[in-house]
Formats: sequence, C-alpha cells, structure tokens
Amino acid sequence: MISPSKKRSKKAGLPPGMPVHIGAKKNASPRITLLDYDPEGVREAEVAPADLAEKIKHASGVKWVNLQGLGDIHMIEQFGACFNLHPLVLEDIFNTEQRSKVEDYGDYLYVVLKTFGYETRGKEERIYSEQISLVLGKDFVLSFLEANGVQFESVRDRLRAGKGQSARLGADFLMYNLIDSVVDTYFSILERLDEKTEALETELVDRPQPSTLQSIQRLKREGVFLRRALWPLREVISSLQRGDSPLFSRNTLLYLRDVYDHTVHIIESIESLRDVTAGMLDIYLSSVSFRISTVMKVLTVITTIFMPLTLITGIYGMNFTYMPGLEWHMGFFIVLTAMAVISIAMLLLFRWKKWL
Amino acid sequence: MISPSKKRSKKAGLPPGMPVHIGAKKNASPRITLLDYDPEGVREAEVAPADLAEKIKHASGVKWVNLQGLGDIHMIEQFGACFNLHPLVLEDIFNTEQRSKVEDYGDYLYVVLKTFGYETRGKEERIYSEQISLVLGKDFVLSFLEANGVQFESVRDRLRAGKGQSARLGADFLMYNLIDSVVDTYFSILERLDEKTEALETELVDRPQPSTLQSIQRLKREGVFLRRALWPLREVISSLQRGDSPLFSRNTLLYLRDVYDHTVHIIESIESLRDVTAGMLDIYLSSVSFRISTVMKVLTVITTIFMPLTLITGIYGMNFTYMPGLEWHMGFFIVLTAMAVISIAMLLLFRWKKWL
Amino acid sequence: MISPSKKRSKKAGLPPGMPVHIGAKKNASPRITLLDYDPEGVREAEVAPADLAEKIKHASGVKWVNLQGLGDIHMIEQFGACFNLHPLVLEDIFNTEQRSKVEDYGDYLYVVLKTFGYETRGKEERIYSEQISLVLGKDFVLSFLEANGVQFESVRDRLRAGKGQSARLGADFLMYNLIDSVVDTYFSILERLDEKTEALETELVDRPQPSTLQSIQRLKREGVFLRRALWPLREVISSLQRGDSPLFSRNTLLYLRDVYDHTVHIIESIESLRDVTAGMLDIYLSSVSFRISTVMKVLTVITTIFMPLTLITGIYGMNFTYMPGLEWHMGFFIVLTAMAVISIAMLLLFRWKKWL
Amino acid sequence: MISPSKKRSKKAGLPPGMPVHIGAKKNASPRITLLDYDPEGVREAEVAPADLAEKIKHASGVKWVNLQGLGDIHMIEQFGACFNLHPLVLEDIFNTEQRSKVEDYGDYLYVVLKTFGYETRGKEERIYSEQISLVLGKDFVLSFLEANGVQFESVRDRLRAGKGQSARLGADFLMYNLIDSVVDTYFSILERLDEKTEALETELVDRPQPSTLQSIQRLKREGVFLRRALWPLREVISSLQRGDSPLFSRNTLLYLRDVYDHTVHIIESIESLRDVTAGMLDIYLSSVSFRISTVMKVLTVITTIFMPLTLITGIYGMNFTYMPGLEWHMGFFIVLTAMAVISIAMLLLFRWKKWL
Amino acid sequence: MISPSKKRSKKAGLPPGMPVHIGAKKNASPRITLLDYDPEGVREAEVAPADLAEKIKHASGVKWVNLQGLGDIHMIEQFGACFNLHPLVLEDIFNTEQRSKVEDYGDYLYVVLKTFGYETRGKEERIYSEQISLVLGKDFVLSFLEANGVQFESVRDRLRAGKGQSARLGADFLMYNLIDSVVDTYFSILERLDEKTEALETELVDRPQPSTLQSIQRLKREGVFLRRALWPLREVISSLQRGDSPLFSRNTLLYLRDVYDHTVHIIESIESLRDVTAGMLDIYLSSVSFRISTVMKVLTVITTIFMPLTLITGIYGMNFTYMPGLEWHMGFFIVLTAMAVISIAMLLLFRWKKWL
Repeated sequence: MISPSKKRSKKAGLPPGMPVHIGAKKNASPRITLLDYDPEGVREAEVAPADLAEKIKHASGVKWVNLQGLGDIHMIEQFGACFNLHPLVLEDIFNTEQRSKVEDYGDYLYVVLKTFGYETRGKEERIYSEQISLVLGKDFVLSFLEANGVQFESVRDRLRAGKGQSARLGADFLMYNLIDSVVDTYFSILERLDEKTEALETELVDRPQPSTLQSIQRLKREGVFLRRALWPLREVISSLQRGDSPLFSRNTLLYLRDVYDHTVHIIESIESLRDVTAGMLDIYLSSVSFRISTVMKVLTVITTIFMPLTLITGIYGMNFTYMPGLEWHMGFFIVLTAMAVISIAMLLLFRWKKWL
Repeated sequence: MISPSKKRSKKAGLPPGMPVHIGAKKNASPRITLLDYDPEGVREAEVAPADLAEKIKHASGVKWVNLQGLGDIHMIEQFGACFNLHPLVLEDIFNTEQRSKVEDYGDYLYVVLKTFGYETRGKEERIYSEQISLVLGKDFVLSFLEANGVQFESVRDRLRAGKGQSARLGADFLMYNLIDSVVDTYFSILERLDEKTEALETELVDRPQPSTLQSIQRLKREGVFLRRALWPLREVISSLQRGDSPLFSRNTLLYLRDVYDHTVHIIESIESLRDVTAGMLDIYLSSVSFRISTVMKVLTVITTIFMPLTLITGIYGMNFTYMPGLEWHMGFFIVLTAMAVISIAMLLLFRWKKWL
Repeated sequence: MISPSKKRSKKAGLPPGMPVHIGAKKNASPRITLLDYDPEGVREAEVAPADLAEKIKHASGVKWVNLQGLGDIHMIEQFGACFNLHPLVLEDIFNTEQRSKVEDYGDYLYVVLKTFGYETRGKEERIYSEQISLVLGKDFVLSFLEANGVQFESVRDRLRAGKGQSARLGADFLMYNLIDSVVDTYFSILERLDEKTEALETELVDRPQPSTLQSIQRLKREGVFLRRALWPLREVISSLQRGDSPLFSRNTLLYLRDVYDHTVHIIESIESLRDVTAGMLDIYLSSVSFRISTVMKVLTVITTIFMPLTLITGIYGMNFTYMPGLEWHMGFFIVLTAMAVISIAMLLLFRWKKWL
Repeated sequence: MISPSKKRSKKAGLPPGMPVHIGAKKNASPRITLLDYDPEGVREAEVAPADLAEKIKHASGVKWVNLQGLGDIHMIEQFGACFNLHPLVLEDIFNTEQRSKVEDYGDYLYVVLKTFGYETRGKEERIYSEQISLVLGKDFVLSFLEANGVQFESVRDRLRAGKGQSARLGADFLMYNLIDSVVDTYFSILERLDEKTEALETELVDRPQPSTLQSIQRLKREGVFLRRALWPLREVISSLQRGDSPLFSRNTLLYLRDVYDHTVHIIESIESLRDVTAGMLDIYLSSVSFRISTVMKVLTVITTIFMPLTLITGIYGMNFTYMPGLEWHMGFFIVLTAMAVISIAMLLLFRWKKWL
Repeated sequence: MISPSKKRSKKAGLPPGMPVHIGAKKNASPRITLLDYDPEGVREAEVAPADLAEKIKHASGVKWVNLQGLGDIHMIEQFGACFNLHPLVLEDIFNTEQRSKVEDYGDYLYVVLKTFGYETRGKEERIYSEQISLVLGKDFVLSFLEANGVQFESVRDRLRAGKGQSARLGADFLMYNLIDSVVDTYFSILERLDEKTEALETELVDRPQPSTLQSIQRLKREGVFLRRALWPLREVISSLQRGDSPLFSRNTLLYLRDVYDHTVHIIESIESLRDVTAGMLDIYLSSVSFRISTVMKVLTVITTIFMPLTLITGIYGMNFTYMPGLEWHMGFFIVLTAMAVISIAMLLLFRWKKWL
C-alpha cells in the first residue's frame, strides 16, 4: 500500500534507458489511432503498427497518434524512431509507476498524468491509478494509454464536429484539451469520496462498530493515496501554465491557467478530507469511551441498588436464636416494604444525580 | 462536504470556454443596474438586457454595471461582447464554484471573491458561500452577484451622496470600495463563530454530551471551510496591493494595503479557531474519562463496603450445629454493631484516600 | 476569544479612511505632551489640544509628541493636519485592533505595536492587549497610547538626564528607544507565563482535577493569543532593521538588530509554551487513565477475595438434610480457617502479580 | 537510536582534517579493483595497495577505482595523494556517519550516498546503513565501500559486456550508473517495508496485542530513520541534476533527472508510511478501548441478571416465622419459574438494547 | 522552563548599549590568557587586566585573547577599548542569554555560541547552557567564556605542538578551530540523550509507572530546549560557511562547510528525538489502557463464575417446606458436582473466547 513499487526491484541491475514494462500488463493487444486535421478537415484512421511510419509521413496538419495498451515493447520503440524520442521517454512510457511530471526535451514536451478508478477485489473496493503519457511536438501530439477505456472520446467527438475551436487551433490546444479532459475525470472521484464520507458519517452517528473504524482508515488512506498522486500534478500544470515551453501559444496558456485553477481546487478538496477523517476518528473514539461510561453507570446503579437489599436478606437469614422481629406477624412485610423504599430512594438519588 | 463539486462532473466532456452554470440556480430573473458618474454627477438606471449595449455607449465617466442573478446565459454572453471579455471569464462567472482569484487579461482584471451566510436545513444550520465576480477595466467596473442580496447598497449610497471621495476618483477606487465592502462582511461571520464558540464552551463545562462533540466537530469544519475559502483571498489581495496591475493608481494601492491587513487579520482569527476546537475536544474527551473514573470509584466503594457485610451474614447463616455465639442473647446485636463499625471504618478509609 | 473583532461589524458599510474608534473606550480625556530637544537642551510641556499646531511650529530640534487616550476624534484629526498624515493612518490609530505592522508613507513611517497586561474579570484573570501607534518623521516622533500607563517614562527620564546618548542623536534613535522599551515589557509577560506554568506543573503532579485541565487550556490559549499578536512583530522589526527606510541611520540600524534578537527570543519562548502545555495535557489525561486502572484493581481484588468466601458460606447455608460436616464439633472453625487461608492466598497472589 | 553518533565523541579534541575511522570496523582487509576502459576495450585488475600509483599512471581512458573496506587508513591517504584529494574528503570517507551530500572541489566532485540493510540482533531485526563515497574527476571515478557486498557487480557486468552505451561514454556516465544502482537498491527496502506493513495490518485486525504496538513503533521508527537518511539525498541528486557542476555532460543530466524522479518517488513512499503507522496506532488503541467496552457489557449483563435472582433466594432464605408461600406445595417451583422469567426478560431487554 | 528570561526584566528601562550582566554570576574572578603565534613560534601568557592594552601592543602575528569569567564589567569595557568593539557587542557578551548568532561589524565578526551541560539540583538532573562569545578580527580572535571549564584546551595544545597546520594559518583558521571544538562537544550531549532514551525504553517495556511518563516528558523537554538552542546555530554556521564575510579565506570556508555538516547532523538527531518521545508516550498510554482491559477481564471472569454458583446455594438455602432434593442422600453432592461442572464449563468458555 505504501509503495506501488512491487515489481520495481526486478528492474534493479538493468542498464538505464532500457524500456521494461513495470506495472500490471492490463492489455496485450495495443491499438493505434491516427487523427490528423487542418482547417480543411479531420482525417481519422486505425493504423497497423507496421504502417505507422508511412502513414505519419503522409499526414498533414496537426497529427494526433493515440496508443492504447502498452503490451508491445517494439511498437513503442517504433514510435521512438518515428518521432525521435529519447530512450528515457520510452522507458518512462512503459514504466507506469511514474509520478505526474513534465519534461522538456527541447523539440518536444513529455507529460505524465494519472487517472483513477475503483476496482472490487473480493469484498473490498480499492482505488487504482493508470498512467497517461502525452508528448507534444510542434505539429503532433502522442498519447499513450494503459487501459482500453474511452478516455479521449469526448475530445475526438469535438474534433470530428469541428466544434470548440479545436480544429482551427494548433497541437498545443489539442494537448490542452487532452489534459483538461483528464483533470475533469478527477471530479467524479471527488464525488465518490463525498458519497463515501456521507455514508460513513451516518453510520458513525447511528451505530459505530469496529468495522466503521476500518472504513474511516480506508477512506483516509484513499485520501493520502490521491493526495500523493495529485500533488505533483499541481507542479506540472503550474509549470506548463507559466509558459516555460515555447510550444504553447499565449492563448493556450490562458486555458491552461484555467486547468491549473481546477487542479488546485481538487487538491484542496482532497486535503480537507484529512480534517474530515480526523474528525470522524475523534467521534468514533469518544463514542466508544462514552459507551463505556454508560455501561459503567448501569452496572453501578444495579450494584448499588441490589447490594443493600441482599445484605438485608442476609441479616434476617442468620441463625441467631435471639433476633427481634422474626416472630412478628408483619415482620416479613415490613422488611419487604423497607427494601422497596430503599430501592426507590436509590433510583431517585440516581435520577437527581442525572445518572439515569 | 469535502468538495463543492457535486454538479461538476456534468461538465466533464464539454469543450472548455463554454459557459455552463454550475451551482444551484438561486434566482432565475437577473437584474441589471447601470451607474455612471463623473465629477458632475451620478446617473443610475435599471437596464433591460436588450438595451445594455446601447446604454453603455451613451454613458460617460466611470461606468459600473451590476448584474444580480446568473440564470440567463445569453445575457452574460452579451456582457462579454460589450466589454470584450475572454470566453474563460464568462465561463468562470457562471461556474460559481471557483476559488477566490485574480486574473490579469491585460485590458481588464478579473477578480473572484466569496461571501458567506448561514442557512437552516432541517434542524441543522449550515454555512454556504456565494460567488462575486468583479471586472475592472480602465473606466468601468462590472459586478456579478449570485443572490438577490443588497451587497453593494452601502457603496451605492456613498456614490449617490457624493461622499467618501469616491465620486471624484476613478474606476479603480470604486473597485477597491466593492472589495472592501465584501471583506467587511467577513467580520460578521467571525462574530457568529465567536458566539457559537462561547455557547459551546459553556455547554462543555456545564453538561457535556455526545451532541456536544458533534457541535464541536461542526464548528471545526466550518473553520476548515472558511479557511479553505479565504486562504486564496490573501493571495488575491496581496497581489492587487503589490501593484502588479497598472489599472490601480498609487493612492488606491494604499487603501488596498489596508484591505490586505483586514484579510490577514480575518484569516488569523479563523486559524486560531483550530486551536480552540482542538482544546474543546481535549476537554470533552477527558471529561468522559473523568466521569468513568468517578463512576468506577462509586462502584468500588459500594462493593467494598457491602461485600464484607454480606460475608458476615453468610457466615452466621450457615447451618453448623456447633457455632459459638448463635445462642447468646446479644449475639445478633453484636454482629450488627460490628457491621456498622466496619462500614464506618471503610468510609473513613475512602475519605482518607480522597475517593469520596 | 478567537477574534477581537467584536465591535468591528459596526464599521462595515462606512466609507474607508474615516476614523472610527473601534475597541473599548478606555479613557475619555486625552493628554498631550510635547518634548523637543537638541544638543543644547530638552524642553518639555503639556499642551492643550488647541495650541498644538502653534507649539509645534515654535519647537526646535527633535520633536516628540505623545498622546495618551484616543477618545477624542477631532484631536487626532488635528494631528493629521499638523504632520500631514494620510487618512488611513488616522483611521488605524483609532482602530485599536490592528496587527503590529510598519507602513512606509515616504515622508514618514507608521508603526503599530502591542503591549499586554492582565486584568481580572470575576474570578478569572484574562490577558488583554493595547495598541501603541508610532509615527517617525525626519525630525519628529509621534506616539499614541491607549491607556493612562507610564509606558515611556523611562525613555523620558533618560532624555531629561541627557544620558544614554539619546539627546545627541536624531529622531530615529528616539524611535528606537520607544520600540525597545515596548519590547522590554514583553519579558515581564514571559515571566508571568513562567510562574503560571510552574504552578500548574506542581498542581498536576500533586492533585490533578478537572479544573487543572481548564487551567492548562487557558494557559495554552494565552500562548496562542500572544503568539498571534507577536508573530507580525517579528516581521515589523525585521523590516525596520533591514534598513528599508532611509529615515534610520546606519548606527540606529545596529541597535534595531539588537531589538530584533530580543523579539526572536521572545517569540521562541512563547512557541515552546505550546510543547509544554501539550506535555501537561498528556500527563493530565494519562493520570486520569491511571487512576481508573488503580480503582479497577482495588475493585477486582475485593471482588475476587470475597466472592469465593461468600460462596462457601452459601454452601454451608443450604438446607440439605444430609450434609457432611455440619454436625462436627470443629466444622465451623475448619470452614472459617479455610476462608482465612483462601483470603491470604489470594492476597499473596495479587502481591506476586504486583497488583497491590 | 536517535543518533548514530556513538563513537563520535572520541574524535572531539582532535585536529580537523585528520582521518579517523568512526563507525564499526566491518572489514579489516580492504580490496582494490581498477577498471579502465576506452572505446577499444575494458581492462580490469585487482591491485595491491603498493602498486596503485603505478597502475593508475599506466591506465588509459576512463579509470574506475573501487575500494572495499575502510580499515586501512594509509591506503586512503595514498588515494588522496594519487588523485590530489583534499584532507576533508579523506576524513569524510573514513567517517562513515555522514549525511548524503555532494561537495564540489572544483576539479572533482565528492558524493556521499547511503545503502541500507537488515541485520538480526538477538530476536530483533534492525535496519542499518552503510556509506558509499564516490569521487568524480574529469576521467576517473573513485568508489569507497564499507562492506564486502557486491554492490556494483551489475555495473561492472554491463561495462564488461560493452552494453548499455556505458563503454563509449565518459566518467560522468559511469558515475550516473553507480548512483543509479545505489538508488535502485532502495526499492527493495521499500518492498520489505511493504511486507512488514501488510503483516502488521493482518495481525492488527486478527489479534492485537501489546507486542503489536511495539512492532508498529518499530516500523514507524524505521520509517523515520530512512526518511532522515534519504531526505538529504533528494537535495544531492537535485543539485547534480540541475547541472551545477561542469563535470556532467548535458546527456548525462537527462539521466540524472530520471534518478531524481526515482528519489522523489522513494521519499514520498516513505513519507506515506507515517500516515499508515499513525492509522495503525489509532486502530490499535481503539481496539483496546473497544475490548474494554465489550468486557464491561458482559460484566454488566451477568451482574444485572444474577443480582435480582440472588436477592429473591435471599428473601426466601430469611428466617421469619410468618412468611406467606413457604408452606405452599408449589411455592418453590413458582419462585423458580419467576426467576426464569426474570432472566429471560433481562436477556430480551439486553438484546433489544443491542448489548448482546 | 519556557524562557530563560528570569532576570531579564531587571534590565527593562535601562538605556540600550549598557552592559549589564544578565544570567547567574558563575565566577567572580576572571582570568585572561593571551596567546600569540606566527610561523616562528607560539607565545603564551596569563595577563593581568591592567596590562592587557600594553601586552597586546607588543604581541605579533595572530593574537588570541581568552577571557574566562564575565564577572568584571570594567575588564570587558577595557577589551572594548583595546579592540574598538561596539557597545552592543559588549552588552551582548555580558548578557549570557543570547541566541546563537553572527553579527558582521565590518572590521570584525561577532559570534555567539552555546555549550551545554547537566547539573543536579536536588534529585533532578537538569540541562543548562553557557554562552561563548567569539570575536574575529583581521589578526586577532577574542573568546569570552562563562565558566572555568577547559573548553579550548585541545585547541591550545594543538597550537603549542605546532601541529594541525593551525600555527601556519591565520586568525580565521583559529576561529574555525574554536567553533569546531564547541560543535564537537554537542556530540557528547547527544550520547547522553541516547543513553537516557534507551534506559527509558527498557523501563517502559518492563514496568511503566506514572514516573515513567514524567521522565518521558522531561526527555522531550530537553529535546525542545536543545532544538531551540541549536536551531539558530544552523543559520550561524551556514552564514559563515557561505563566505559572507571577507575575513574567512577560501580554504577555511571548506573547513566551515564540514562544521556545517556536523551541525545539520546534530540538529537532525535532536529532531528525531521528538518522534521517539511521541512513540514512547503512545506506548505508555496504551499500556495503561491495556492493563485496564486485563484487569476488567479478570473481574468479569471471577464475577461470571461465582455469581451462578452463589445463586445455586441461595436457591437451596431457601426455607420452603416442600423442596425436592433436600432430603436425598446424595443431594448435597449432586449440587456440589453441578457447581464444579458449571465452573469448568465457564473456564473453558473463557479460554475458548481467549479471555484467559
């Protein structure tokens, strides 16, 4: 849980710059789509790995190559050759346990982002993350996805419709669109956390149990996981939005500033989860203490009422030859009445002391 | 509670720069007021959406357009056209879940602020926030309010009266007046928190209950909510007051420095709420522990006094044929006296040990 | 407690730059003293408000005007006219709930400092703060005091005696003397906190009670109050000592560096109070737990010893016709002996288990 | 535990710049290997201390001298003479309790790194650290290892095979390879911590015991130890990767940036251990409280059921002459039935109150 | 404990720059030693206060004047005259409650350091600090010590022996030697803390008591005290080592960097003490809770076993005329057997539930 480095040590000892797939192999059969557009129109095609170089040469305008599935190492290397990517970039695309980061290689920009989802293992629901690698060049954008999801379908739809200005703008604006659509997915994670939090709060007030504590801890850990995964994102978007790279036009920078605002907003929301879970822990722990104090009171009340009564019966159960009262006709009832009076007095005392 | 992003995910997938109203639609019928003034006088009028462009063209001096109610998307777009606002600004005005921020678009400055209020839902009182968007141009100020409140009535009154120097000063001083009147409203929130804190402290000392703990947590969370909402404000005012934008004159900057002092003061007050609620939690938890210890003592005292007595009655209740004392005339009373002596000795012992 | 903003909201809605006295009106009748000195001598006089402008015109050398009591708004405005002060400065002098700060208005420097004292309300002793405003010009120093105290008597004495180099030095060195004498008063507050801490620690070890917890919390809160009030002071003195303003000579800056060292020292002392009170809380809470554990042991020991004995008497109290031993001559004593043996064995067991 | 300074004070009082071996003397017999390579080939030899200077003079291309075992002070001084190292460097190589650091001596760069391992002392497993000193010159790399491990075997293998570009690149790339192989070893430590964490979490849920708490504390302390040891590493790699030293070529800097990413990743993983152990502590403490509350309930239930029954038997055990019912034929069974009814009613009450 | 300002307030009201001895007067009779050296030799002499000026005039090469004992105010002022020291420096030398600091007076550098020791007051051992003032000029070093210790004996020995390069180097290297020897003394304090920590940890596991808690708090407070005293040291050495002052040669700066490393190492060790004591507190508190839970279990087991048995004896102790079994020959033994069976069943149940 603390480190996603499970398979990392198998890489220790290998030369650097050698792409080795670290992370679960989620899909073996990769799929490449090439989409190129200029003011005149949008062309879209699924490309066989072998034809990639050829197709790219003939594409005009802004080129967007999307690869889904990181199973095939040779295909990635082909990409590297086509677009002249540094071996370290290829290595990082494969190693899906990177932090979010942006790296400027002069001709192109390499950006790593993360998406999140929930998967159910046994009874437990667990959060997991996937990696998205983006490469922005002068007139191309490359995107590498781990899963078979439909991550960028909305961006593609907008391009197809020629709407949203995208089609008339450069590769940098497409890049912004991709980043923005990734950041937007974080909002649904936030909503999920919100629902969980509310459910837990209700459980906490109605019927706290040891399993409640474990749920709180799990929620807290999800918050820690997300915070850790999203914290570097802030830096990434901040660096992009500052305009460190000449690949982004002034206009796109304004839009990136907007994404930056969203990012800060998301991170702050996750940060506040920390206070919320801490508060829940306090309530849980004090509710356990409070229950102990309640049970103790009941025990004390019961003991305090019955002990004197039992003592009285003990006294009249002794076998002394000379005991006054034993022969009285009403003796038994007088003692019973006395016991009732004592009980009621005790109960009133406890009520007065607000123990009942 | 952790994120105000409830309705945000419906926006995921839409092209950026497209104004979509995120947040509760609090008022459907917007209302526009145009106020323009120069040294000669102040003119004020309610404007129909259709006439906005026309009216603005004829206004002279400093123009202040105030829009209350963000229900109508087309009206906002008309504003955009009139004052040449960037699509992202229009989007942000509509999306009322922004953080406080300031954005410099060269010709104009876009500032987002927050106001707070309490609303009662069922039994519970909840804090909520509304967004105020301000745009400062060379000779105009635009203000966009979510609610139907009378937020800026005092500023308007002062302009009407020609008092407070405002009328002779530029749009930047009007902008300062608006910001100052927003920041001033925070002080009443602080006072409310103060009252709540004092009420809770009294409750805590007099009669702590599980509901007290929940009130403490609620107070704490309000503090977290406010801190999170006001923290970026500090940066906003600090950036304005540093004179990053040429739209503010040197004189107005001095006044903004004053607003900055207020902001820091407010944030510090809210920060100290954290220590206060932490202290209340400690008192609550220890009061529960202390009560357990008190109850335990009572139980132990009762048990310790009655057990020996009951044993004595048990001993003299045994059916042995040969038991000395049973036939004595005073046997019964001797035993009773012994029991009384034992009880009193025990009580003295406990008093000496300071358990009673 | 969290905010000293009680009376602040009454100011909301008023035009900025309008002096309104916020804070308790502690003294209605203000008192002005004018002291001017040059190498030839020191002249000192109490001045009627009406004569202020006149007197100042005739004063030569370094002029120090001291105003005690902020009740009269017109007098402050007269000051403003005499020394050409900005309306915001006048407002801040009156509003005695400022943070410590320094503001450079070009011709003069406006410094706000705080002093502290204890006042007793009912049974409780409370810390309070007063504001001191200082204005340093080229050849004058203005000081505005809230209370009727004798704050600056020592500085005045030194000037009168012509000692301490003060008389031969400029207004900036006088300013330093005033700041230094304010900072020196903080040391007595530290000593007071020290005494309180030691008293509480003794109480904590000897006889902790719920009221002890409240005293700890009160001490903690005083620390928070002071820290919050003194934290900005650090920045103020640091900014002065860095020589940001040309009003201070190089020589005076060396002395201000000395004041800065004191300030840091004081703030650090108050910071460490946080650790101390946290430690006291831990000791208090654990002492309650420890007492519970002690009481529990006593209860368990008592129960464990008496229950078996009572059972034995119960057994021999049963009414079976055929019970061996009942008719034995020594039966009763054998049982009593057995009970004694059991008790002693139990006690030994508990001692061996270190429960007694 | 808090300081690895055990043997440090023996150095107090000695002149600085005098190499004294601080730290356990782990191996007395040092071993030197010299490896030099140029595009033409790789030459490798074990060198006797006496021949070092000679051998180095004859080596061509990039020279890598590796020393395992710091026992012999004179050999280190010989190194110093050969490569013209500053006395402080020699001192630091010997003093194996340095923090990770990089020091630029102009002609060469001195880098201190740490490796970690687990050793078992008695029953307890303890983490320990060893120091690796690296010196990078224009055409040489020196490495000083504490232990007899095979730390750099993989780098050597790659050089021998002429693979991984290393052989064609300069001393700086070799340096990078060494640093990278050290950082890679940290991943296995992370995995070890992961395993421990998971084992502890299972133990915590299944059967928490006081020893569990001690294991949590031990885990926490390992995290603190590692964090403290690795924190300066971040700065070291960051400083190298920023290109502060001209000894690193632009190409190598890209690779160092990759190492930097790994370092940040590792430190973040260790940081999150803090949250995890804090969560475990909360679970442990609350599980103890919860058990108390469970035990209390059982005790209260037992007491509440049996006390009334015992009272009833007491009542009918009294020796009054006139007691109704004693002579009834079914009296005994009526009382027994009443007792059973009371017991069942109590049990139902407790079940309804959810205490059972 | 929180502030060492005990005697500080007596200084309030005095003119600044007037040396007043604040702090305990530890030694009344000061002792001056003058040591001057050049490549030709080292001359050393004890100097009477009256001859100081004379002797210094005749000394050649690097002059080191060491003053032990700050009791005599006139002697310090003589120093001030001889070496042209600023009144504030003289004041600070006397006021032994300074923070560590470095002050650049142009011609000379004034450095304040701290040493620590333990003294026993009554039963308690307390940490205390002493102040060392160092002044570095172009060709002289002044050192002012509070105690009669032999602080710098090792430096003096090395100078006498002409070893360690010191004799051939300038005043700045001597200064470094003095600072280094002060920093080296901190390592023995660390070792002392280590020993205390280990002793406490053993006590905590073997037999935790309320006094253990107080020892933990005392240890924690020592850590806070040291951290507070050493934190400014970091800044001091960092500022020296950065070469802000031209008095230090490039070569000496390398050595100061080494001292800086030690300082950081020491501060980090003390910082980690915080985690250690926090962990000990957790263990202590949970061990108290755990003991409560153990005691509760014993109590519950005892009660649960004996209550049913006592009830049975009660039942057969009732005085009903018609009770089956009472006349049976084996009745008594059947009941006893039943009681034994019930006890054993209960014990097995508890063992199965893992309560025993």
